[in-house]
Amino acid sequence: MSDTNSVKPDSTFEVKSSPFLQAIAQQIRGQDTYGVYRSWSDELLLKPYIVSKPKKREIPVDGDVDPMTISRINAFYRAAAACIEKETGFLSQVVVDINHEGFGWILVFAGHLILIRKTMRDAHRFGFDSLDKTAEEGEKLVTKAVDIAKQFAEVAKL
Amino acid sequence: MSDTNSVKPDSTFEVKSSPFLQAIAQQIRGQDTYGVYRSWSDELLLKPYIVSKPKKREIPVDGDVDPMTISRINAFYRAAAACIEKETGFLSQVVVDINHEGFGWILVFAGHLILIRKTMRDAHRFGFDSLDKTAEEGEKLVTKAVDIAKQFAEVAKL
Repeated sequence: MSDTNSVKPDSTFEVKSSPFLQAIAQQIRGQDTYGVYRSWSDELLLKPYIVSKPKKREIPVDGDVDPMTISRINAFYRAAAACIEKETGFLSQVVVDINHEGFGWILVFAGHLILIRKTMRDAHRFGFDSLDKTAEEGEKLVTKAVDIAKQFAEVAKL
Repeated sequence: MSDTNSVKPDSTFEVKSSPFLQAIAQQIRGQDTYGVYRSWSDELLLKPYIVSKPKKREIPVDGDVDPMTISRINAFYRAAAACIEKETGFLSQVVVDINHEGFGWILVFAGHLILIRKTMRDAHRFGFDSLDKTAEEGEKLVTKAVDIAKQFAEVAKL
């Protein structure tokens, strides 16, 4: 196993500089019923979102998607929903429909309006080059979603 | 096992009188790679959608949802999507996200517009009193969805 799989904190980027990454950390801590992560830093908590390109190639896509990966995908999009809610006031829901081949849909929606509409491929390999990239990707999704929510507020209230 | 579970055709209602039921039959036949149902009448094919109230009470809700029930739910909402597409021209997608407890979401959407937005409870017991009721329920969903599609065509095209 390559060293990219170890859970050393990413020293190059601080979670507290990104509201989106903070939202992910909150989602993970919210699910942490037994306090396993209580003493972990946010950087350590979010480390598994970093999956380098060589590491991605190592992950086989022919088995079921790892339940931990599914949790990570869920936390990522729930964090996006939380950020959208904070900016627009619309309560948004997340639906993840990924088959065992790692293909499927992820939707974030409010009322009858879809705010994030993502087709997923190779869910097994979900991850980003760095925390920086994770934040960037998440914030891009949120910005676009907030625009749609403002433009079609009527549909989001249906 | 009660006689409501047997697969005798429902003689009181004809599938060809309902475009919605025909659409379900089409969905099921479309998945029938090995031609198992080739010689079956549409009435026989759709019989499993009839789940009487006493029969529903017999179905336990504490295990996983039967894969056959999930297929039935899928075919029902795909049929709705097909009917909506026929009336509006919008290509619609179906997303089913039901957990092992039988709770979850079913969404039918086009572009960024959700046409059918259904929260599911007790998916294990999915079914209707009769084919008549199945058709009625489906046609109600389609009519409402077509209204929404016409009202917010702009969002469906996003």
